[in-house]
Amino acid sequence: MTDLHDTMLAMGRRARLAADALRTASPETRTAALTACARALRDHADAILAANAEDVDRARAGGLSEALIDRLSLTPARVEAIAAAVAEVADLPDPLGRELARWDRPNGLDIARVSTPIGVLAIIYESRPNVTADAAALCLRSGNAVILRCGSDCLSSSLAIHAAMVEGLVSAGVPADAIQLVDTPDRAAVGELLTGLEGTIDLLIPRGGKSLVARVQAEARAPVLGHLEGLCHTFLHAGADTQMAIDVVLNAKMRRVSVCGATETLLVDREAADRLLPPVAGALIAAGCALRGDEASRGLVPDIAPADEADWSAEYLAPTLAVRIVDGVAGAAEHIRRYGSGHTEAIVTGDAEAAAGFLNAVDSAIVMWNASTQFADGGEFGFGGEIGISTSRLHARGPVGAEQLTSYKYVVRGTGQVRP
Amino acid sequence: MTDLHDTMLAMGRRARLAADALRTASPETRTAALTACARALRDHADAILAANAEDVDRARAGGLSEALIDRLSLTPARVEAIAAAVAEVADLPDPLGRELARWDRPNGLDIARVSTPIGVLAIIYESRPNVTADAAALCLRSGNAVILRCGSDCLSSSLAIHAAMVEGLVSAGVPADAIQLVDTPDRAAVGELLTGLEGTIDLLIPRGGKSLVARVQAEARAPVLGHLEGLCHTFLHAGADTQMAIDVVLNAKMRRVSVCGATETLLVDREAADRLLPPVAGALIAAGCALRGDEASRGLVPDIAPADEADWSAEYLAPTLAVRIVDGVAGAAEHIRRYGSGHTEAIVTGDAEAAAGFLNAVDSAIVMWNASTQFADGGEFGFGGEIGISTSRLHARGPVGAEQLTSYKYVVRGTGQVRP
Repeated sequence: MTDLHDTMLAMGRRARLAADALRTASPETRTAALTACARALRDHADAILAANAEDVDRARAGGLSEALIDRLSLTPARVEAIAAAVAEVADLPDPLGRELARWDRPNGLDIARVSTPIGVLAIIYESRPNVTADAAALCLRSGNAVILRCGSDCLSSSLAIHAAMVEGLVSAGVPADAIQLVDTPDRAAVGELLTGLEGTIDLLIPRGGKSLVARVQAEARAPVLGHLEGLCHTFLHAGADTQMAIDVVLNAKMRRVSVCGATETLLVDREAADRLLPPVAGALIAAGCALRGDEASRGLVPDIAPADEADWSAEYLAPTLAVRIVDGVAGAAEHIRRYGSGHTEAIVTGDAEAAAGFLNAVDSAIVMWNASTQFADGGEFGFGGEIGISTSRLHARGPVGAEQLTSYKYVVRGTGQVRP
Repeated sequence: MTDLHDTMLAMGRRARLAADALRTASPETRTAALTACARALRDHADAILAANAEDVDRARAGGLSEALIDRLSLTPARVEAIAAAVAEVADLPDPLGRELARWDRPNGLDIARVSTPIGVLAIIYESRPNVTADAAALCLRSGNAVILRCGSDCLSSSLAIHAAMVEGLVSAGVPADAIQLVDTPDRAAVGELLTGLEGTIDLLIPRGGKSLVARVQAEARAPVLGHLEGLCHTFLHAGADTQMAIDVVLNAKMRRVSVCGATETLLVDREAADRLLPPVAGALIAAGCALRGDEASRGLVPDIAPADEADWSAEYLAPTLAVRIVDGVAGAAEHIRRYGSGHTEAIVTGDAEAAAGFLNAVDSAIVMWNASTQFADGGEFGFGGEIGISTSRLHARGPVGAEQLTSYKYVVRGTGQVRP
């Protein structure tokens, strides 16, 4: 345990030194490093696939479900996709050194707010070896050193991916410690990371299931960025077009039921529920979705099973949808205020005034008008990738891409001014 | 203890409800509330002064030093200044509902990033009754509900100030709970606040001495904004003009020695130390400053006493200055990297290239060229007041004014788009 503690602390110190070097490197250097990482991933595809086969064999022997095995499995096409994603990040504009604001003071001081890296990030994730490359690439683009901690089920794959990326870094003159991977499956290593490693970690980002995120949020002594739940709502206002309501809700629930942006509760305006709910419910049921709703909704659609209080707080991550009849924008906003997780909420309506009321009243990271909540994604926002979605009100809210992994400092230029 | 726990939790819940009301109020309503608060402070000046007399009597009886008594004392002029400061915040532009960015996606989605309040802030401070009004005003301007916890030494004054402000809030139709003041001096109330009050507190801001800030940072279960130390540096580069060096350093150290932006360590470029150090040291000594330096500095100015390792990490908050000879920008940047607190660092030079190197290499909240570190202040930056200075790399760095007390959300406008 003491050895692990010392090992982890040393990782933190090395990360801090690498962060200082990354911060003062040029954008061209960071771009070259990313390009070299992508190339190294392609060069070492065979080694990565061989390591992945070890992970898959271990998972099969351990009795993991086919769905989980598929989540951690790599194929030549998937490895190519990982490399291509890193190459895309190389093409992203550099988010550092930008003048976010600049102004003069009456005494002649010239003040600028300039973007900088955050410093050292620690990313804790499960089961998905591509995150090793994706997360490292976004950190490198934003000048941050990163300590990665993958799930034990994809450790071999991640080690191989990490080794390839380090080769890329070094060939571009970037310190190898800019990207470190915890190489022991020992659970205690996560506990060590959560201490913040004596202040060397600036930000913890958990990516995974609710229990991982909850553990991180409860124990962490360093700041955490992430979300506990994606309890998203779609509200069909009385001014909603019926066909648009069907198309949007079907996509918002059923496109992929296990993503955080999947709608978990459908709210329907009482004033037009008789027009809107039956066809929407019918489409959902035909697509294999189970509906659980309040008495009013069941009166309109008998196939809806009874919902109870727990259903309003349920993130099903399954083809199940809670349904409730509410009174207008105010009723929808109040339900969301009470039960929502601050993630993503949508209103469908042709009434611009009602939409404006909803967009203003609802305080979630993403509020939408006439679009599917499944668009809650950094790639869909044009961020070129995301490290996750944050429901935090601080630092970054919504999709966290390279630009959100930055801080800023003030640069003040004077001519010898002194303060009275 | 249980009663206190329940009382504090109830404050948190009321603050959360008030925050929701504030968030959806109009800018005009918040402005009117601030104006009404300023008027109420003026109307109740006598009551505030009478309450302050109680605090002062109690402090005298408790043997507090004259300096500390002066810090908590109010006069008619000081009460007027408090009211005027609140009126100035009423005149600040509203920082909410601003479109920070807006763009279209290829699929036609229109995405905007819009500023919002953070939510519920808790501010813990000592000895200065004006903070009760200053902090509350900045929170109100930025749409945040606030729970204030003042030092026990200014509790009576703060209760009177709070009562006046609540009168102002209510007269403008804003919930009284937008500004709450903890009315018991029980130390356990601080511990309760630090728990985050079951998630109702979004941000803790400690303002005070190092032990308060350290306690908050160590125990808090909610995010904290603030700084532990203001260990600021001024570096005299070989290209520095002698007179500018004297003027800037004298101001940076001696204008006010106990502010966080006071320079605590002077770094002098070896290449021009013989030209720069003697006159600068002479001016400091004539102004009553004690100097402690390394061997090289003492060789040039015998009046400098020996410094040891502890002096490089000392925030004196007194007329004492550590002095070290370093080798160029690289030497200064390395010393600052090792000993600095990330607050404010300045270079004095006529060499633009050296200045650029320093401004780029040094990673503090504020980096300056040819200006006094004493400008590290929200008012001096044009922010219209500040709640404190942050050395955090997350959310806000440097002076924290109304604009920094905001978050944002994404507003996505579509025409029925669904995600493939």
